[in-house]
Amino acid sequence: MKNFDVINPRFENPRVRQVSIWRVDTEGGIQTNDTLAAEEPLEIVLAFGRNNQRKRQSISITMRTPTGHDFELALGFLWTEGVISVASDVLSVRYSASELDKSAQTNVVQVDLHPSVKFDSERLNRHFYTSSSCGVCGKTSIDMVEATSCFFIPCGKPVVQKEILFDLPDKLRAAQSVFDITGAIHAAALFDTEGVLVALREDVGRHNALDKLIGWAMQNGKLPLNDTILLVSGRTSFELVQKAMMAGIPIIAAVGAPSSLAVELADDFGMTLIGFLRQRRFNVYAGSERIENLKQD
Amino acid sequence: MKNFDVINPRFENPRVRQVSIWRVDTEGGIQTNDTLAAEEPLEIVLAFGRNNQRKRQSISITMRTPTGHDFELALGFLWTEGVISVASDVLSVRYSASELDKSAQTNVVQVDLHPSVKFDSERLNRHFYTSSSCGVCGKTSIDMVEATSCFFIPCGKPVVQKEILFDLPDKLRAAQSVFDITGAIHAAALFDTEGVLVALREDVGRHNALDKLIGWAMQNGKLPLNDTILLVSGRTSFELVQKAMMAGIPIIAAVGAPSSLAVELADDFGMTLIGFLRQRRFNVYAGSERIENLKQD
Repeated sequence: MKNFDVINPRFENPRVRQVSIWRVDTEGGIQTNDTLAAEEPLEIVLAFGRNNQRKRQSISITMRTPTGHDFELALGFLWTEGVISVASDVLSVRYSASELDKSAQTNVVQVDLHPSVKFDSERLNRHFYTSSSCGVCGKTSIDMVEATSCFFIPCGKPVVQKEILFDLPDKLRAAQSVFDITGAIHAAALFDTEGVLVALREDVGRHNALDKLIGWAMQNGKLPLNDTILLVSGRTSFELVQKAMMAGIPIIAAVGAPSSLAVELADDFGMTLIGFLRQRRFNVYAGSERIENLKQD
Repeated sequence: MKNFDVINPRFENPRVRQVSIWRVDTEGGIQTNDTLAAEEPLEIVLAFGRNNQRKRQSISITMRTPTGHDFELALGFLWTEGVISVASDVLSVRYSASELDKSAQTNVVQVDLHPSVKFDSERLNRHFYTSSSCGVCGKTSIDMVEATSCFFIPCGKPVVQKEILFDLPDKLRAAQSVFDITGAIHAAALFDTEGVLVALREDVGRHNALDKLIGWAMQNGKLPLNDTILLVSGRTSFELVQKAMMAGIPIIAAVGAPSSLAVELADDFGMTLIGFLRQRRFNVYAGSERIENLKQD
């Protein structure tokens, strides 16, 4: 092993890419290097069906940050899409060969479903169109979330103190490893109601960051996440609320704004939705009963 | 007509929703009203096929801001997905009834394709999976963009002065009508190389904002957009570059960061990609030859 093979570890971080850029201001321009958030496609392949009728099908290609959490991402995606609903639905998760591109050797995760799991690709297509990562959804999909979710959000609990919420963004930033370098990575984190960080995942796609968290929870037997607070670094979309619902998360807090449908959905599901959580302030858009001593002191 | 029927126009703006929230800081909380970016699903229905074999099919439901630009959104989506490639491919665009939900009376746009247009829903599915709004794509889709795009990016032109670029974000903000109220709307704008605003569209989904712009250009006979600069208010994803390519846009500037694949794709296509355009600074990630006098003066 040669010493000069040891490269600056920052250059080996698979989450970032070094690129050559021109940095320009009013004075002029200089050529320099810059660090970008890496993104690569991840193909999710399903193997399913009874023993002598096993099939293999590519069900999704999602752009993701290669953080080493691909199995979590695949499992979380399948969970939040309603394809699997109990950990034993999955026989194995592994890197495999692509169904779409025979030359692809990496960035493909195969999930083997238990033969008893009924997989209806038509239904997934529909769901995918109507509720997925695309920011694509509709009223139809609200019904579908309610139909496929096996968890309920507990009424009025847990209760959390506002001071604990105030502190969460700083804790998130302290724990984040890529955001400050590139300015382009979303984070999703789970905290307990005392404000202790439980898990954190990052991705160029905020839906992916949450899928990774939910996949992690599934692999670790922690679903439903009925006692946790989800904090996301950006805005809250309809889709994030939907995914949180599928994992039983009762409280969603975001550094940014919610969309109007995110608020409607959270309200429908009895979830607490907090936005603009920063600089020791926040807005509560739904489920204010879960915040202790909310009124003016 | 009664005078008291005239409501505060801000409450009638379909782009925003008034909600009741709790605003909380260290002092306590007060109940108040807040304005959110409205989002509603838009279903796109295609009618296609030869005269006696016309079919009607729902091909997408996308969440969008109801800005009154639904026809542009549908056309731009079909254009950037490669379903249509010339204005005469479309016989009509109109509001219609849903294929998915018989009770839905609004938020459905039907596009009637010319009988000569071959529509392959399997191919769209694949393309949709691999390159669309989902942030979903892959190497396969790079090939597909090149295969389906009917435009080329002109080599090394147009050329733009950096001072003109510096001024674009302020012009965008001055022209934007929703962003400052809600903090949750993406904007996409076209400028000419003198920095004159040509068109601006807004949406909760940045891909939708760009689809609207491209649909507008198509309806107005302005494709390919070979002499324009695209400015987007957020980050640049792979997908935005792909859509810009489908419209022949040579220069993309963004207020935020690009992803690594966005840079790769722009470089592959010979496009100019600018990021972090704010406070009279920017970075050039690809195609620096289109910026005049780039080097230090």
